[in-house]
Amino acid sequence: MRADARRNQQRILDAARAMFGEYGTAAPLDDIARRANVSIATLYRRFPDRAALCRQVGVEGYETVLAEARAAREVAEEDGPDAPLRAVERFLTGVVEQRSRLVLPLFGGPGFHDEEATVLRHRVTGCLDAILVLGRECGAVRDDVNSTDLLMAAAMISRPLPNTPPEWLDTTARRHIAVHLDGLRPGATHRLLGPGPGHPEPEHAFSPETPTAAEHAPTEHRP
Amino acid sequence: MRADARRNQQRILDAARAMFGEYGTAAPLDDIARRANVSIATLYRRFPDRAALCRQVGVEGYETVLAEARAAREVAEEDGPDAPLRAVERFLTGVVEQRSRLVLPLFGGPGFHDEEATVLRHRVTGCLDAILVLGRECGAVRDDVNSTDLLMAAAMISRPLPNTPPEWLDTTARRHIAVHLDGLRPGATHRLLGPGPGHPEPEHAFSPETPTAAEHAPTEHRP
Repeated sequence: MRADARRNQQRILDAARAMFGEYGTAAPLDDIARRANVSIATLYRRFPDRAALCRQVGVEGYETVLAEARAAREVAEEDGPDAPLRAVERFLTGVVEQRSRLVLPLFGGPGFHDEEATVLRHRVTGCLDAILVLGRECGAVRDDVNSTDLLMAAAMISRPLPNTPPEWLDTTARRHIAVHLDGLRPGATHRLLGPGPGHPEPEHAFSPETPTAAEHAPTEHRP
Repeated sequence: MRADARRNQQRILDAARAMFGEYGTAAPLDDIARRANVSIATLYRRFPDRAALCRQVGVEGYETVLAEARAAREVAEEDGPDAPLRAVERFLTGVVEQRSRLVLPLFGGPGFHDEEATVLRHRVTGCLDAILVLGRECGAVRDDVNSTDLLMAAAMISRPLPNTPPEWLDTTARRHIAVHLDGLRPGATHRLLGPGPGHPEPEHAFSPETPTAAEHAPTEHRP
């Protein structure tokens, strides 16, 4: 792809992410093209339909989460017994800080469930598993939490609550993360129910078969 | 209000809650009346406009949360040093179990910020404060968590994640709650940033001034 084509593509994706965040995934493609300062023909040349555009915004969201997971794994490999918990903190706060880039898939919008998405998810949980293994080895992390728990915690903590000012969201998230980190230490009195740490990633999590109706309202709304 | 009028009103509210959950707060009032098995004239007699209907669904949501908070406070007053943490567990799992009744305000939809809402919120945080005081007195709960933290935790944990099957949501929520309960014990190594336990409830939390755009997409969506 030529440099200017690449720039156009990124401008369209940035505009789409912002518009999806404001108006839902039914945001008019015309408006997205206008915001990206490209013609609608250029938009369609890059993304043949709305689904293709949504999907790529979702892929970029996963890539953002993966970058945070990789940075966190590096923290876990530092010296000292507190490195693994600092790594979890790095991951959770990193995802919270990136939340405006995660409009899809964590905040709603169609799920996708193809090979690229599966590979990205496995890379994310691979990083988180590595952090948890290091944490268990040095006795810093309880043994019944798995990488899916961490990923779901990041999703829960980072999604903006409705009608709540951003500064309150940030304070709330930071405080919740601190409690969560203390809960991740060994010596737990509340053991986790359900499958243990070695269980496979849920094949259906984030799959398109079970949309949450309220989250999908923008695309399904009848005028 | 006569018994049949009361029944009609409750049927309309139940239908509205379900339709808002499926289609967002822009769900057609005609469809809500049809689902409630009442005429549109009856709906308008009870609720002069969409805002009034949204507001009452929101009030019922707060009342549901208040009922859970009161039940939890009773648990906290039982004997034994683990009663306060069991009370927190009761509150968090109770809100998760009631989540289908909390379409508004926790899951999106317009906030409301009048006297009735303020009174309801203060009653909820009053119950949670009582639980935390009992917990701190018997050394079962860390001293830097406040009632707003608990309410926000309930909101974060109970909101359904998009594209995630209900059974996974329940497992994820239960496991997250267990970690959170262990994090609430004294002896924390991650102290909470921000205002301490005695600080006032945020006046602007859940206020209508700062809608989260993505959550409001159903009502603002342009066709």
